[in-house]
Amino acid sequence: MQRADAGLGFIMQYENVAWFQDGKVRILDRRIYPIRTEYVTCQKHEEVAQAIADMVTQSGGPYTAASMGMVLACYESEAMKEADRLAYLKKAAYTLSHARPTTSAKMERFTGSILNAAAKAMREGGDVVDAAREKAVQDLNDRYNRFEPVGEIIASLIPKNGTILTQCWAETDIAMTLRACRNQGNEIKVICAETRPYFQGARLTASCARDMGFDVTVICDNMPAYTMKMKKIDLFTSAADVISCDGYVVNKIGTFQIALAADYWGVPYYATGNPNAAHPTIDTVTIEERDPELALHAMDVKLTLEGVKGYYPAFDITPPELITGIATVKGLMKPDELSGYFA
Amino acid sequence: MQRADAGLGFIMQYENVAWFQDGKVRILDRRIYPIRTEYVTCQKHEEVAQAIADMVTQSGGPYTAASMGMVLACYESEAMKEADRLAYLKKAAYTLSHARPTTSAKMERFTGSILNAAAKAMREGGDVVDAAREKAVQDLNDRYNRFEPVGEIIASLIPKNGTILTQCWAETDIAMTLRACRNQGNEIKVICAETRPYFQGARLTASCARDMGFDVTVICDNMPAYTMKMKKIDLFTSAADVISCDGYVVNKIGTFQIALAADYWGVPYYATGNPNAAHPTIDTVTIEERDPELALHAMDVKLTLEGVKGYYPAFDITPPELITGIATVKGLMKPDELSGYFA
Repeated sequence: MQRADAGLGFIMQYENVAWFQDGKVRILDRRIYPIRTEYVTCQKHEEVAQAIADMVTQSGGPYTAASMGMVLACYESEAMKEADRLAYLKKAAYTLSHARPTTSAKMERFTGSILNAAAKAMREGGDVVDAAREKAVQDLNDRYNRFEPVGEIIASLIPKNGTILTQCWAETDIAMTLRACRNQGNEIKVICAETRPYFQGARLTASCARDMGFDVTVICDNMPAYTMKMKKIDLFTSAADVISCDGYVVNKIGTFQIALAADYWGVPYYATGNPNAAHPTIDTVTIEERDPELALHAMDVKLTLEGVKGYYPAFDITPPELITGIATVKGLMKPDELSGYFA
Repeated sequence: MQRADAGLGFIMQYENVAWFQDGKVRILDRRIYPIRTEYVTCQKHEEVAQAIADMVTQSGGPYTAASMGMVLACYESEAMKEADRLAYLKKAAYTLSHARPTTSAKMERFTGSILNAAAKAMREGGDVVDAAREKAVQDLNDRYNRFEPVGEIIASLIPKNGTILTQCWAETDIAMTLRACRNQGNEIKVICAETRPYFQGARLTASCARDMGFDVTVICDNMPAYTMKMKKIDLFTSAADVISCDGYVVNKIGTFQIALAADYWGVPYYATGNPNAAHPTIDTVTIEERDPELALHAMDVKLTLEGVKGYYPAFDITPPELITGIATVKGLMKPDELSGYFA
């Protein structure tokens, strides 16, 4: 089967994100990569759900992990009668898609698709495990293919051999952008803000860009504004966890203050993602606050005295006036044009 | 002797910054405090100079360390004849004041003062070590007393039970500000940006404020702009490594982007320090770039793949239009009023 993860670097390959083989699902531990390349091995689909809940994989990773978890559930249930097996797989689809609360609706599309493929193979007497894995790869390919034009839009905005700044781990979006640059013969430079407290920018984004052969520089989170002055940065780009229909981008904490700096220096800021109809305005979005202790730690070292508090808003909100454009699967739009996305 | 370090918290006490006792100088290791409370013990004044060069103590700490290093040199030379001893102490004063290049002129004021006190004690037949240590404490007291009004200026600008944001370790300036708040009965809240890559905000500033009994919260360096929206912050304050006479503040990297966010939200930004006549304009200031590998590490853990580059400008430049005022030893001035400082 043609694979849509070609050329996207080590941590984007399905085998490394999460992969079913020999009755087990092996998931790359993104909490520690590339400091250590470690995999979590799951012998039951419930362990895959737990790994997703524990953030072993994140961003787009859970779609792959849950899909491979469904293949594992097919393997687990090989000795069952058809009706029992179908009930078992339905329950597995629920368990895997509901490993984390916010994304369960998106996750159900993947687990449900494999459930249907497995049911069809059962009816037709095919190899259920093979059919499930084939469907999983097809769905993941479809997902990558849907994102390819988004990467092409951002790539088309970067000058020849230009420099982009990004932060956190925009995963599919940034990998597709880099691949599109490569395909266009544009050897761009990538600067990543490290993205505290988990350092996803330093660990994941920089690793992906490096694997793909790009010139990549990591800066600390207190450096973007001054780096814009000192290095010629052509474009700031980030993914978005939520885009409200009135043009606000909710993304990993830090995006907003980089957008402020970009505005100050006249550097364009392009976000990637689609507006969410469930959020007609930004007022309907709740910003998650995570365990404040995380802000007091770095690589598991506690930095502060007892009694010092922490504060850890996981996301921030960038207002429309700081956003140059949003690359959606329906093309590039200005923040005040998003209503057109649903037309 | 009356001590000017009273009430300033553990890491501001002379005994913890650096102290001569029983023939040794003991220096608190600010590179790891408060994760571990460790001291570097120096048996020779040359070891004190090396400790300063190695950043065992920093910010205002080297003034105390070099002063105590001079006391140690007096102790080392007790058996020498007067002329030899004077030559030995002159050499020690040079070694200690030139441990780091940028601040040697400021450092010479401290080592020279103790050299003079020791020479006087030799002439008058007094106890040279005692005289040197007494002079060291007097000079440090004088330094603290000079900074006290700067802290009082900033304190006077903070509303009752208000909240301030600071970053990095403004040392004497922030400790004096907090003591002035305490003296004025103003129980302010302190928010510190952690300040990568060394985490001085999380480790040093937060420890000082906590020791002094204030409510203190640490945030990561990607959080100040959003924290300004979510928490009511009344004032952003920082020290300055250089203030040019045309009103630019050079300070630890990150100051500039916090000042940008403060400007966006209408939060005033007050810097502390005196303009430097050697820098009539900002164009005469060279921004130090430190080892880029430091930006790729957190608490000695390397975060990135081989081949990923780092970039570490140690300071940034905040332009006058983002600065509300500068608290100098001659009072509060606007950035465009600094020429008056020398009048």
